[in-house]
Amino acid sequence: MHAYRSHTCAELTAANAGETIRLSGWVHRVRDHGGVLFVDLRDHYGMTQVIADSDSPAFAAMEKLKAETVIRVDGRVKLRDASLINPKLPTGEIEVYATGLEVLGPADELPLPVFGDQEYPEETRLAYRFLDLRRESLHQNIMLRSKVVRSIRNRMWDQGFTEFQTPIITASSPEGARDFLVPSRLHPGKFYALPQAPQQFKQLIMVAGFDRYFQIAPCFRDEDPRADRSPTDFYQLDVEMSFVEQEDVFNTIQPVIQGLFEEFGNGRPVDVNWPRIPYAEALKKYGSDKPDLRNPIEMQDVSDHFRGSGFGIFAKLLEQEGTEVRAIPAPTGGSRKFADRMNAFAQKEGLPGMGYIFWRKAEDGSTEAAGPIAKALGAEPTEAIRLQLGLGEGDAAFFLGGKAEQFEPVAGRARNEIGRELGLTQENQFKFAWIVDFPMYEKTDEGKIDFSHNPFSMPQGGLEALNGDPLAVKGYQYDLACNGYELISGAIRNHKPEIMFKAFELAGYGHDEVEKRFGGMVKAFRYGAPPHGGCAAGIDRIVMLLADEVNIRQVIMFPMNQRAEDLMMGAPSEPTNEQMRELRLRALPKE
Amino acid sequence: MHAYRSHTCAELTAANAGETIRLSGWVHRVRDHGGVLFVDLRDHYGMTQVIADSDSPAFAAMEKLKAETVIRVDGRVKLRDASLINPKLPTGEIEVYATGLEVLGPADELPLPVFGDQEYPEETRLAYRFLDLRRESLHQNIMLRSKVVRSIRNRMWDQGFTEFQTPIITASSPEGARDFLVPSRLHPGKFYALPQAPQQFKQLIMVAGFDRYFQIAPCFRDEDPRADRSPTDFYQLDVEMSFVEQEDVFNTIQPVIQGLFEEFGNGRPVDVNWPRIPYAEALKKYGSDKPDLRNPIEMQDVSDHFRGSGFGIFAKLLEQEGTEVRAIPAPTGGSRKFADRMNAFAQKEGLPGMGYIFWRKAEDGSTEAAGPIAKALGAEPTEAIRLQLGLGEGDAAFFLGGKAEQFEPVAGRARNEIGRELGLTQENQFKFAWIVDFPMYEKTDEGKIDFSHNPFSMPQGGLEALNGDPLAVKGYQYDLACNGYELISGAIRNHKPEIMFKAFELAGYGHDEVEKRFGGMVKAFRYGAPPHGGCAAGIDRIVMLLADEVNIRQVIMFPMNQRAEDLMMGAPSEPTNEQMRELRLRALPKE
Repeated sequence: MHAYRSHTCAELTAANAGETIRLSGWVHRVRDHGGVLFVDLRDHYGMTQVIADSDSPAFAAMEKLKAETVIRVDGRVKLRDASLINPKLPTGEIEVYATGLEVLGPADELPLPVFGDQEYPEETRLAYRFLDLRRESLHQNIMLRSKVVRSIRNRMWDQGFTEFQTPIITASSPEGARDFLVPSRLHPGKFYALPQAPQQFKQLIMVAGFDRYFQIAPCFRDEDPRADRSPTDFYQLDVEMSFVEQEDVFNTIQPVIQGLFEEFGNGRPVDVNWPRIPYAEALKKYGSDKPDLRNPIEMQDVSDHFRGSGFGIFAKLLEQEGTEVRAIPAPTGGSRKFADRMNAFAQKEGLPGMGYIFWRKAEDGSTEAAGPIAKALGAEPTEAIRLQLGLGEGDAAFFLGGKAEQFEPVAGRARNEIGRELGLTQENQFKFAWIVDFPMYEKTDEGKIDFSHNPFSMPQGGLEALNGDPLAVKGYQYDLACNGYELISGAIRNHKPEIMFKAFELAGYGHDEVEKRFGGMVKAFRYGAPPHGGCAAGIDRIVMLLADEVNIRQVIMFPMNQRAEDLMMGAPSEPTNEQMRELRLRALPKE
Repeated sequence: MHAYRSHTCAELTAANAGETIRLSGWVHRVRDHGGVLFVDLRDHYGMTQVIADSDSPAFAAMEKLKAETVIRVDGRVKLRDASLINPKLPTGEIEVYATGLEVLGPADELPLPVFGDQEYPEETRLAYRFLDLRRESLHQNIMLRSKVVRSIRNRMWDQGFTEFQTPIITASSPEGARDFLVPSRLHPGKFYALPQAPQQFKQLIMVAGFDRYFQIAPCFRDEDPRADRSPTDFYQLDVEMSFVEQEDVFNTIQPVIQGLFEEFGNGRPVDVNWPRIPYAEALKKYGSDKPDLRNPIEMQDVSDHFRGSGFGIFAKLLEQEGTEVRAIPAPTGGSRKFADRMNAFAQKEGLPGMGYIFWRKAEDGSTEAAGPIAKALGAEPTEAIRLQLGLGEGDAAFFLGGKAEQFEPVAGRARNEIGRELGLTQENQFKFAWIVDFPMYEKTDEGKIDFSHNPFSMPQGGLEALNGDPLAVKGYQYDLACNGYELISGAIRNHKPEIMFKAFELAGYGHDEVEKRFGGMVKAFRYGAPPHGGCAAGIDRIVMLLADEVNIRQVIMFPMNQRAEDLMMGAPSEPTNEQMRELRLRALPKE
């Protein structure tokens, strides 16, 4: 017989009754039922009930077992009494009568129990991650992640892609975030950088003539702490294709993502119709470039009804250039109580409040508009608003005014809140949309023109477009939104050096600086570059959506804490003097 | 029609004759056959011949094309004349008569041609890697690597393994080589390290209750330059299993590796019988712990024949303790010319020479032994040696004497040389052996006891064995040798803290130091650790063997040069002052 096991802890059924077997695993729980000991023996695969009475040679050893001890059990498979069968357990028909027991790995008193669902402080859970990972839900999340990654790989191969690994120790290439640097010992004073993304490499792979590349790629960004992201690294499905237009990318990626969500969505419906929504329209309707389309609410411009109206605040506001009033319809939200709750939400967001109208049944049985705005506005404009928004009795509408870019983020969050509060957002399903036509440039707070997204994207209209108003230029740049998250971001790339230099020039980067920063890629584009494009999908985010988790550390095997520390391994740590000497570095005192 | 192509450059056959099609690709070669232009148009998939005569609207543009320009061609598929059919090309039955042509990506004068097989300096090839990668053989190597990795993944899943990613930004854990460090911005003065291997993490994964782990894992070592390895990172198939013994690992891994070599070995025979050879026996017979078993030569101890013999050098040598004389039989090597060649080889290796005997036909038709050793030794011992080695007329034997550990490396190389020179080594096949029973410890040059291999291995005989002579302790530690290379290294791990502390103590590491260096793992072993073991296989090496390449840079998409520089991307490079300020670091002047 095998030294450790003849079966896993998920394998034995009634068919094995009477067999002499051997199991190994962790002591999940010990119960003493009046001289009969019950051990739930757990391994990666499942759980088996082991029993011993005082006649068993294993009884004495079993009495002393502590939780999470690793043991080997020899025994005989017995059918359970009909009344004791556990249909929820694959091994629920049987139990194992122990005839021998050996402790393979003893366990000290646990800092964190594995059995049971008690909440424990996250710092403890991270310091004893190896215990936390034994717990059912985290264990399953990590397995899910692995299966998701595997499925992505197979789906990409099936679409004709090849996976290539790109360098991890490489050149600094500022792409917006901060690099992690790696000092070079052989070249003192010089540093490598960990890639923020394989952006340049994947484009170089296309220039090298490989047609369809993907990679489950580790990406490194020295980010300031934020709850929903890893402070050091993350994984993306990185994709690039040659000789494609935007729609080719969409048509290639949709089956991969859709299939993935169908496979692992646990029966939650997956939208198959993925609309293309221009960026500007997304902001107008949803106040976000990653709208949650499970929420049916679409905002509308209702400025005309307020212009020169009796509602002075908005009327005055609209006299300023570039302002508007946006309505968020709230079907079924027609009560003062709900309106007040949303008002409170707006105040929490830092606004003085959020105007509203709601429609209720009047005493005479007709529909009447209520709320301060309705009063100030008067009956006719109020009714026009109701008709425009398609609302009726029992519904409400909320209003935000000013410059769109200023109120839109709050409007977007209010839309989410309203959808959720009123139960309009259909939970437990996945809805997707491609957001397209992102602007190439934006004005910074200092009034400078800068790239608003990926500087490597091809501007729509090419060189000609760049000779006009930069703020009017759209890029072949796109995102995939899912349930309010940005799941994918991508672009058709700018593969023509002269358009690239012009694009960077508009954002204030001189020819030399572009050569210096992106020299490898710019050089490559001079020796026959194919048109190409692609995208990158966030693996962590996909798994979080599928596992229904909001904490990213619930889907990573060994995560850092939010202060970028590994509490289990003790990282980061002081270097040795020898290491610093070899690297020719000195640490400065704290500022 | 699609903006860029209706077909790839490998797709069109006689069945498409008459169709109007569109292709995109690189101009591989242009030939002008008296007013008719031929363009070999190449993409990732293959090659198609495009033609234009002066009637074609594409003629003028085609005349101006430079090699490696990316173009789009519209045209009609024509059958080639029977005499012009190229059966070596999938598209060899047809050609495309161009009716339109657009340049998608122009090409400057090339620093490195893609067409043709001219050798170019490696520095140029690395600086223009995107061009080098377009060349047939490198392109195919990179594709092979990707397919190999995919196949490994599928084979591991099929064996019930799950792939998990372990951290890349992590803690320093000295495992023999030098760490790459990453300064922490949030914790000034502290550093992360890139993992030399996921050794501790994979063991923690077992402690966390995942049963069978694998990973195609990037490993980082700040190594000094050596021709056959990457100076920064490499990839390994990292494997770990719980509740296993050594033979379980062998039986799990053999089908993976064997299947892989069968799949990608291009018909070269793959040995299915993998012997287990104890480390000591491997050194004795082959002078190496990674013997090339395609070479049938087995060395033998022939000390007895030389002890007190007339061959003074060896006789005297053997009077010293711990010495011996080893014979390398060389069947069919029985000529003075060959013996002299091998003697020269030994001198190149730094020896004064290598003694030999060879057997030839004497003038009277009998077999006679020739060479200075035979003369000095006398007929009887010489004949005894011949009989022991099973040699005869036309054969030779070479002799090395002294302390085994001193001459064995040269003996091993001489064995390789003899096997190759005499054509005894059967090229074009793969032969494997598990080398087992590695010693746990060795004596350093300073006479200290140190780990000879992996300190995490379980000593055979457990704690008890550690209380005896350390140099006699063998580990459950093994390698897989293939064709003279170490392909895999692994061990059953030491999962018992008390045995681990004792093992480290013998090598001079105190309790505190073990806690400090391997704290995460040691802590974990106190809370229920399963017996576990595994191995790691070198991906680069596997691909090199399959692709029949000796230069590692031929199987990596974007390799560093031997000075650990990326000539294409310009790494490493000077950091900005801002970066150094944020990291609170100062670079010291060169020593």
